Amino acid sequence: MPLSSSNPHPHQSQTIGIVGLGLIGGCLAIDLKRLGYRVYGVARRQATAAVAREQGIVTQAGCDLALMTEVDVIFVCTPMATIVPTVQQLQPYLSASTVVTDVGSVKGEIVAAATQLWPNFVGGHPMAGKAESGLTAAEAGLFHQRPYVVTPIETTSSTAVEQVVTIATQLGSRLYTATPAAHDRAVAAISHLPVMVSASLLHTCLTEPDTDVKTLAQQLASSGFCDTSRVGGGNPELGTMMAHYNRGALLQALHQYRHQLDNVIELIETEQWETLADKLSIAQKERPKYL
Amino acid sequence: MPLSSSNPHPHQSQTIGIVGLGLIGGCLAIDLKRLGYRVYGVARRQATAAVAREQGIVTQAGCDLALMTEVDVIFVCTPMATIVPTVQQLQPYLSASTVVTDVGSVKGEIVAAATQLWPNFVGGHPMAGKAESGLTAAEAGLFHQRPYVVTPIETTSSTAVEQVVTIATQLGSRLYTATPAAHDRAVAAISHLPVMVSASLLHTCLTEPDTDVKTLAQQLASSGFCDTSRVGGGNPELGTMMAHYNRGALLQALHQYRHQLDNVIELIETEQWETLADKLSIAQKERPKYL
Repeated sequence: MPLSSSNPHPHQSQTIGIVGLGLIGGCLAIDLKRLGYRVYGVARRQATAAVAREQGIVTQAGCDLALMTEVDVIFVCTPMATIVPTVQQLQPYLSASTVVTDVGSVKGEIVAAATQLWPNFVGGHPMAGKAESGLTAAEAGLFHQRPYVVTPIETTSSTAVEQVVTIATQLGSRLYTATPAAHDRAVAAISHLPVMVSASLLHTCLTEPDTDVKTLAQQLASSGFCDTSRVGGGNPELGTMMAHYNRGALLQALHQYRHQLDNVIELIETEQWETLADKLSIAQKERPKYL
Repeated sequence: MPLSSSNPHPHQSQTIGIVGLGLIGGCLAIDLKRLGYRVYGVARRQATAAVAREQGIVTQAGCDLALMTEVDVIFVCTPMATIVPTVQQLQPYLSASTVVTDVGSVKGEIVAAATQLWPNFVGGHPMAGKAESGLTAAEAGLFHQRPYVVTPIETTSSTAVEQVVTIATQLGSRLYTATPAAHDRAVAAISHLPVMVSASLLHTCLTEPDTDVKTLAQQLASSGFCDTSRVGGGNPELGTMMAHYNRGALLQALHQYRHQLDNVIELIETEQWETLADKLSIAQKERPKYL
């Protein structure tokens, strides 16, 4: 009898570990359990582990990393700062074949450090989120049709990469493979730079010295300003953390951005209207490639 | 018998002239005719005047400014470059009490020059638009609940201002009064600066030298990038025209913006994460005032 008919959940033989039961860890747990995996979760607090168990989000949950013994693939879903320390703390509980992956939104330093600690580490970045955070905000299908970037390096075992790719594909994500450096540069450009560009726009308006002008600007601002300022008015801790962890790539992007801005200023100062129009035409023509 | 019952359209005694039957002129004509005004329109092309007549958008239409003789209030709805020349060409047809107003999105130079030509000139800026342009895109109610800025100067007659304010109020607009300079600084900050900020973001991504990174950025870009880049990918002619006509205020805003950007770069370079988080918190807290 073929496997598919004898076992409707061919992955039930595998156990997935999730360390960190916040929004991303919780969403992964929900989807993977539905896919038929055994899902073991480790939370920082007993109360979170209890909720995850009671709501059937995980098969087992607790606060002890020993729960990760005999798990096949572990997703480290802690905040960025604790990903590498978590990989270190996991070491005593791992068997040689255990694959460890993470969901951090910056990859360079994490992949380098975690691979040193565990050769079967595979960097990953499922690019999905919600305004709310924590396990209570977790829901099914968050990663469906969203990008999932896997960032192997030269030494990463292809078997480990395949296992992460298989799971991400089952989540319905759009899979991309990139070097950690390419990933970090790409997200600096399309995600972290926009936050700084947008926040600087808000601060330009906020520092208007003439209060009549400042008030009028607030009254007249409409959808264009609303959209351009949206990500700059987002979660300040998240914005700061991205800048902190992706500092190198973000600074490169910011300097390149300032160069572009200086060019626009020069075109306006020297009244090179045709060149400015050409530049805006290129922006109009190329933007759909980013949508 | 009170006026309201004897005459359901108390404004039918007034005639409004509209010079320039594009999107804004057409929308004004539709609303004002519905309000009971006689509306006389002047188009650049006979075909446009014919459409305006046939569709009942105006009471009368043609291509000759002589049609503006005996009109009470004239809205100059031509492109920015031809507003002042149009006021000049109108002079032979105006009686002393005729009020002339415009709908240009930059006010400083226009109000100064047009007032010299016609003391009864009142600068105006109804802040509404559509992606489409031209008379065929005109529709009723475009100005409803949208800002309408009136920009009188010291010499502007208060009777003339009142007439424009009355009409704008009847359109259902939110009325604001500001000096031409305050208007231009406010729209530079919330409308023209965002275009340059947003276009510079697109060009930063477009000039990424590593094609793998550039392609990955296009694949990973999501709603945040989409929103921040939207106005930068808009109509290039419009963006250039705004920069041209509001050059002084826009350059001031751009220099202030660059100062803000440099501050963000410095905070990241010197790893002042708390100060950066404070800055992003202020942006988050203050943004709702612009919504």
